[in-house]
Amino acid sequence: MATIKDVARLAGVSVATVSRVLNHSPKASAHSITVVNAAMAQLNYIPNANARALAQQSTATLGLLVNDVSDPFFGAMVKAVDQVAIQTGNFLLIGNGYHRAAQEKLAIEQLIRHQCQSLVIHAKMISDDDLRTMMEQVPGMVLNNRLLSGFESRCIALDNRYGSWLATRHLIAQGHQHIAYVCSSHSISDAKERLGGYQDALRDHGLMPHDECIAYGEPDENGGEQATISLLAQGKHFTAIACYNDSMAAGVLAALTDNNLKVPEQVSVIGFDDVHVSRYVRPRLTTVRYPVVAMAQQAARLALALGHGLPLPPVTHLFQPTLVIRHSVARLEEL
Amino acid sequence: MATIKDVARLAGVSVATVSRVLNHSPKASAHSITVVNAAMAQLNYIPNANARALAQQSTATLGLLVNDVSDPFFGAMVKAVDQVAIQTGNFLLIGNGYHRAAQEKLAIEQLIRHQCQSLVIHAKMISDDDLRTMMEQVPGMVLNNRLLSGFESRCIALDNRYGSWLATRHLIAQGHQHIAYVCSSHSISDAKERLGGYQDALRDHGLMPHDECIAYGEPDENGGEQATISLLAQGKHFTAIACYNDSMAAGVLAALTDNNLKVPEQVSVIGFDDVHVSRYVRPRLTTVRYPVVAMAQQAARLALALGHGLPLPPVTHLFQPTLVIRHSVARLEEL
Repeated sequence: MATIKDVARLAGVSVATVSRVLNHSPKASAHSITVVNAAMAQLNYIPNANARALAQQSTATLGLLVNDVSDPFFGAMVKAVDQVAIQTGNFLLIGNGYHRAAQEKLAIEQLIRHQCQSLVIHAKMISDDDLRTMMEQVPGMVLNNRLLSGFESRCIALDNRYGSWLATRHLIAQGHQHIAYVCSSHSISDAKERLGGYQDALRDHGLMPHDECIAYGEPDENGGEQATISLLAQGKHFTAIACYNDSMAAGVLAALTDNNLKVPEQVSVIGFDDVHVSRYVRPRLTTVRYPVVAMAQQAARLALALGHGLPLPPVTHLFQPTLVIRHSVARLEEL
Repeated sequence: MATIKDVARLAGVSVATVSRVLNHSPKASAHSITVVNAAMAQLNYIPNANARALAQQSTATLGLLVNDVSDPFFGAMVKAVDQVAIQTGNFLLIGNGYHRAAQEKLAIEQLIRHQCQSLVIHAKMISDDDLRTMMEQVPGMVLNNRLLSGFESRCIALDNRYGSWLATRHLIAQGHQHIAYVCSSHSISDAKERLGGYQDALRDHGLMPHDECIAYGEPDENGGEQATISLLAQGKHFTAIACYNDSMAAGVLAALTDNNLKVPEQVSVIGFDDVHVSRYVRPRLTTVRYPVVAMAQQAARLALALGHGLPLPPVTHLFQPTLVIRHSVARLEEL
């Protein structure tokens, strides 16, 4: 591969001149820019990003950590952050934490090592202390979907408890009193808050939450299917199921259909997140919208501004979920 | 943020010694390693990856280009490559090409600039010539799902035509003679080859392919839904639909259900890829398996070996799809 020396030799200039052209220095003459660019094109020279980064102290890279890009929720988050990166001329580096504290920490360190001055981090397992150390070191680090005390101005979060309360209240308003809950088995704040919102809504309407009406599973289709089978196998009486997320709700629909239970005629189902799948299951899923795109884009703009010492954009630190009514919930008296 | 000088000062050693410890040099004494590591821990020092990379001429990064991580097919590909990266102690950088030649080229250049010595590239829009230039520059660059003449030993591809032939033959073997095709509107080799396989299978069994039985759409659920509506609106007679991929097939199932057509009792549907969604639609989708994980892992191992001058792993350059029979296809006489 061609080196900077080859470029200098072919262009008939010094290595320092090539470097000035590469770094867009105002000291580079028009003639230097022309001959160096021509030599680079002829040699197919690709500048060494590391050397350039050291010279410029900036690589214009935005780092993003998600749990797992193959999960459609995080796929949507990546796409939203990448849109901001492309619009602002940045290149996006993506890391996966895979729901494990050690992997989350390693991936954040790798993004920092790759000179990401701006970071959008979705990490739920890593400890508050480890996160604080990193937040102190990297001024352009922003947390998405997590509130870390002391760093609230660099956090963007969702009111999970309210979202789940809203979903459950919608079922109650349709006349349902026996409402099961399909919960994520991951021990993260989202799972606790969403379960808490379901229980609060029952209590607020004079209904008693029962632990045996809660079934747990991995937060995906298979987990939702298994949790539903477990509820059915135990002979629980319910006319509606509130779910941790839409992926689990898709599994709930599949398991109910396989057991000849009609949705919503016999059982109503409500999701959470409003990801892609909610529009393509049948019946279309009634759910609660997680504004994943808006949150991710605000986090990206905030991280870029903080990382480059620019004026801060207006930011909503606590987003509110909203109800999306489709066809998977029916009034009880119609049943 | 702490610098290497701060570490040297606190450890009571020279900057060169800190550098030797950071670079795992055999010249670093046990004492140096102990005091430098202690100082780095106390200062929360994160080594500058660019400086280290220049010193080591390696960053142990593996680059991956996909179309769009938010597409479940590419999500599965990312996860498979990341598994190889984690197993081999590499860090994965991911770029998105978004089905556009200019964006594909830019993203590959960015990955190269970020010192990826090994690259797994899924790019269908960029020209053969542009790709050849890059392949010549980067010995550790491997193409996944594309055959580039002159670089066959660094390509891994799928026999798309055979896969689609197999799917269509399965429908014919079940007695179907009026078989529509839901095709991707993207002008890429996969779309042409899969459509060709469908037409070949019809001809091989004495059936005439008709252009008016082919409907086009974006290769996602919405595209499948729209293509089906177009076939139904034109009053086409068909008892089975072969689809470009599973996402389109999910849209086909949704559109048929919405129009009170039972699958497979009235219309049989077959997909392609065998992604996650094929198991969670109802009826479960009969499809053709694209060995996305095996192909991505072989591509990653090949790229790592080529990028680091290591012995090459055994590689299958042309993979064969296989039939996966579930519940969306029925024999015609049962209808």
